Amino acid sequence: MAGSSAETIIGIDLGGTKVYGVRTDADGGVAAESKSKTPVQGGPLGVVDAIAEVVRELAEGATGGRLRVGVGAPGVIDTDRGVVRAAPNLPGWSEPFGLGEALAEALDGASVVIDNDVNVGLLAEARVGAAQGEDDVLGVFVGTGVGGAVMLGGKLRRGPHGMTGEIGHIVVHPGGRTCGCGGRGHLEAYAGRAGMERRARELESTGRPTVLTELAKAKRMTSSVWDKAIAQGDDVAIHLIDDAVEALGYAIAGVVTVLDLPLVVVGGGLADRLGPRFVGRVEQAVRSQLFAGTRLRVVPAELGDRAGALGAALLVT
Amino acid sequence: MAGSSAETIIGIDLGGTKVYGVRTDADGGVAAESKSKTPVQGGPLGVVDAIAEVVRELAEGATGGRLRVGVGAPGVIDTDRGVVRAAPNLPGWSEPFGLGEALAEALDGASVVIDNDVNVGLLAEARVGAAQGEDDVLGVFVGTGVGGAVMLGGKLRRGPHGMTGEIGHIVVHPGGRTCGCGGRGHLEAYAGRAGMERRARELESTGRPTVLTELAKAKRMTSSVWDKAIAQGDDVAIHLIDDAVEALGYAIAGVVTVLDLPLVVVGGGLADRLGPRFVGRVEQAVRSQLFAGTRLRVVPAELGDRAGALGAALLVT
Repeated sequence: MAGSSAETIIGIDLGGTKVYGVRTDADGGVAAESKSKTPVQGGPLGVVDAIAEVVRELAEGATGGRLRVGVGAPGVIDTDRGVVRAAPNLPGWSEPFGLGEALAEALDGASVVIDNDVNVGLLAEARVGAAQGEDDVLGVFVGTGVGGAVMLGGKLRRGPHGMTGEIGHIVVHPGGRTCGCGGRGHLEAYAGRAGMERRARELESTGRPTVLTELAKAKRMTSSVWDKAIAQGDDVAIHLIDDAVEALGYAIAGVVTVLDLPLVVVGGGLADRLGPRFVGRVEQAVRSQLFAGTRLRVVPAELGDRAGALGAALLVT
Repeated sequence: MAGSSAETIIGIDLGGTKVYGVRTDADGGVAAESKSKTPVQGGPLGVVDAIAEVVRELAEGATGGRLRVGVGAPGVIDTDRGVVRAAPNLPGWSEPFGLGEALAEALDGASVVIDNDVNVGLLAEARVGAAQGEDDVLGVFVGTGVGGAVMLGGKLRRGPHGMTGEIGHIVVHPGGRTCGCGGRGHLEAYAGRAGMERRARELESTGRPTVLTELAKAKRMTSSVWDKAIAQGDDVAIHLIDDAVEALGYAIAGVVTVLDLPLVVVGGGLADRLGPRFVGRVEQAVRSQLFAGTRLRVVPAELGDRAGALGAALLVT
């Protein structure tokens, strides 16, 4: 096809630990992939170099043509200006940084578009994943924290602060568990892996035995640790997942009620690992809060780890 | 101006007890107003007659030209098709009814547009009231219940079920007070006058004295009753208004957090009566839940009782 040979489309998922990139084909599928570690030294300029290297590697195998690069980055993004305004999860990014311009320069004038990583994840699910054909979608990504993104009328909503979708910081239990951000009762404190781990260790320290700490060894409680603990019938794990499902139910129902949305996609490391059964429970929890007769589907994300890079590529497709 | 002489623009606020209409001038101000009772007999066709009569009266004094009528109606509206899909507060409307077509016919082919009453209220505040110049606005209307409407990018969001904005039915206190809709812990149970009255009578029956019942006599606790009770330092009234402010804070903060909105307009009978001090307290409650540095204003609605009719006129302006 003319489009595919005239342009080389690359999507980059910039994470706190790795830079993962794909080159996409004419159908938006993965033609090639590559990754490297996110440099812990060197701040934004070091990251620009690392991204540029991944891009060059991916571009090598391409048929040529204009190079277009989309980047999904964690934090608050000004998409219009290509600026990462705040990125607490990237090492050494203490100030707003014009990632778009710096990367375009490093790549000899390639066109570069940047957006929030959660936004591009939803974009991918909407175009080539679980939410195809739906214009109005809420995306909820359950991992270490809980991220969200909103598509309305087929377009991602970004908002004047570039902060649309922060569903993790909705209050679901007034005065409840303390969130990583310092707030009380936020969804993320109940349904994010970090908050759930804090709570599990608290419960254990008050005499509630759990296999979670043992399975985690001296490390973090990964999604796989939670999955195994549930499979073993661990009371604490089951109880905390129940709480997470309930909290997701309240928060998602609130958003669906205010925006009248027909579809919610639930993804992220924890949801992917726990699978369709978990998402089905979330769907039931949401529905139990809605008016009878409201049509709503809550479906599992389909693209897993690749959603970010695929969605980033869609920014420039 | 050419526009004003070529067309006669009329806005109708269809309520459960009265039909209130305005003819607007070229600047969107009120050129004439008229009202009649909403007929309790005759169902939808009776209402069509009542609206048509108000429209004819308003049109009489106009310079002529094409007649255009906007209607704000309570309930679930399919704006594209001019259908009132459900209107529990209108007598005898047990089925979906094509109000737009019926009214156009009764008015000899006038063009008619219908929308939800809360939507048109926000439209009026956005165009000629408290939210002028802002494209992204949440409107919250606190009266017997709590209604909401959402404007994004300068356009009202309606949603596939025509139910966008139902902020009154967000859960703010899981397992909390029972809402008129049967749900638990909804905003409306804490901040709607009907829910607050139920709670006040409950508290009184358990030995908490209050002047609210006395002020209400054998009738409903109107906004003026609440205002007077607070002025007299009534403990129950003050406590319930505190709860309402807190609940509005949680619900509005949730919506603002997910949609990244810069402005919220708070109106409706109770908010209008309690005035800017009440809205200022709501603003503080919302801000206390947001990330530091988020720019957000919560402002009182400016158009009072006329917002519905003025907004309805804007549907056809």
